[in-house]
Amino acid sequence: MAQIDLEQKILDKNDRLAQENHELLKEKQVYTVDLLASPGAGKTSVILATIHALGDRYKIAVIEGDIASDVDAVAIKEEGIPAVQINTGGACHLEADMVKRALDVLDLDEIDLIFIENVGNLICPTDFYLGEDKKIMILSVPEGDDKPLKYPGIFQVSQAIILNKTDTLPAFDFSTDAFTDSIKQLNPTAPYFPLSSTTGDGVDAWVEWLADQIEEAKAQ
Amino acid sequence: MAQIDLEQKILDKNDRLAQENHELLKEKQVYTVDLLASPGAGKTSVILATIHALGDRYKIAVIEGDIASDVDAVAIKEEGIPAVQINTGGACHLEADMVKRALDVLDLDEIDLIFIENVGNLICPTDFYLGEDKKIMILSVPEGDDKPLKYPGIFQVSQAIILNKTDTLPAFDFSTDAFTDSIKQLNPTAPYFPLSSTTGDGVDAWVEWLADQIEEAKAQ
Repeated sequence: MAQIDLEQKILDKNDRLAQENHELLKEKQVYTVDLLASPGAGKTSVILATIHALGDRYKIAVIEGDIASDVDAVAIKEEGIPAVQINTGGACHLEADMVKRALDVLDLDEIDLIFIENVGNLICPTDFYLGEDKKIMILSVPEGDDKPLKYPGIFQVSQAIILNKTDTLPAFDFSTDAFTDSIKQLNPTAPYFPLSSTTGDGVDAWVEWLADQIEEAKAQ
Repeated sequence: MAQIDLEQKILDKNDRLAQENHELLKEKQVYTVDLLASPGAGKTSVILATIHALGDRYKIAVIEGDIASDVDAVAIKEEGIPAVQINTGGACHLEADMVKRALDVLDLDEIDLIFIENVGNLICPTDFYLGEDKKIMILSVPEGDDKPLKYPGIFQVSQAIILNKTDTLPAFDFSTDAFTDSIKQLNPTAPYFPLSSTTGDGVDAWVEWLADQIEEAKAQ
């Protein structure tokens, strides 16, 4: 019982801080995406492809969550994009207070869109609201079409689902029909974007949808 | 402080149960591998390739850890191999008490080797001893050669490291030199097995090493 009470207290505290983050971001008219995926699914490459497509239209910043290292933040900064590294010190997900500290060092008046690249795994980040507008997940073709069955929680909470590395479909036994059937069952309303951040195929549909979300949020 | 104390208590209790598992397995002369990897890295395919190579020599069983579903256990049972499914109900790693309950339903007198397929991620299973002889991890080529930098803990605790899906090296920008340099720094003594469970390349070296470990344990 002590464990359950403590978990609930941690989640309650997190949600309160996340709500504060959300209000600050809304006041500053910053649209925020919490990006979830396994290691190597291509979170950083999808962010880079989005920066290349929307970087002239919106001022973008990135908050990088990792248990160690800053290789992704370095790759983002090389594009001339502000990036803040959070090292969780072993924890398998970001929490709202970590994001709050990252927001403190960004000039939010100069930003339209923030990607929060969460720690790479399909489980722990699911339950933690950070103050984002949308949780969006990426699965990549090499991971296999059975992942919605095995990790249903993340497919259910995500408000859009990207299938990355579609250029490698010929090399893997991946049924896009089986995959889309599974995600439609778990999450019938989430938009679905198959794409390759390597070849650029499908990136247009994703970035246009994202731009629409940003415009809708600004208009509110 | 309350959180840290509680975590320590959970880990202490886990270690005590894991030690009981280990003593039982040793008494029954069952060699046990805790297999760690991200979703889709090929844990089940490596287990199946090992069963095909060593199934005539050793009686093998599998304990499948998943947060949901039993698709892997079903695939293993189709090979005529005993498989016990553990669903963690959301938890991102197995604990010793879950493995204990799985051992209760296996006929350990009829088993030489157990694979424990842990929940798919590179973070949470790192800290939990289950009673196994060795923790062994799999990274797959599509995940990228930078993963040792980003998830050093799992590379440090693993007592052997498998690189799977080497048949897809031509399709990905993966430097095996960079990868092996990183793992040698993090874990200089861990044997390293590059292989493809699809083509069978490299599987021989892995299964022969594993057979040697089993024989050494029996001889003790």
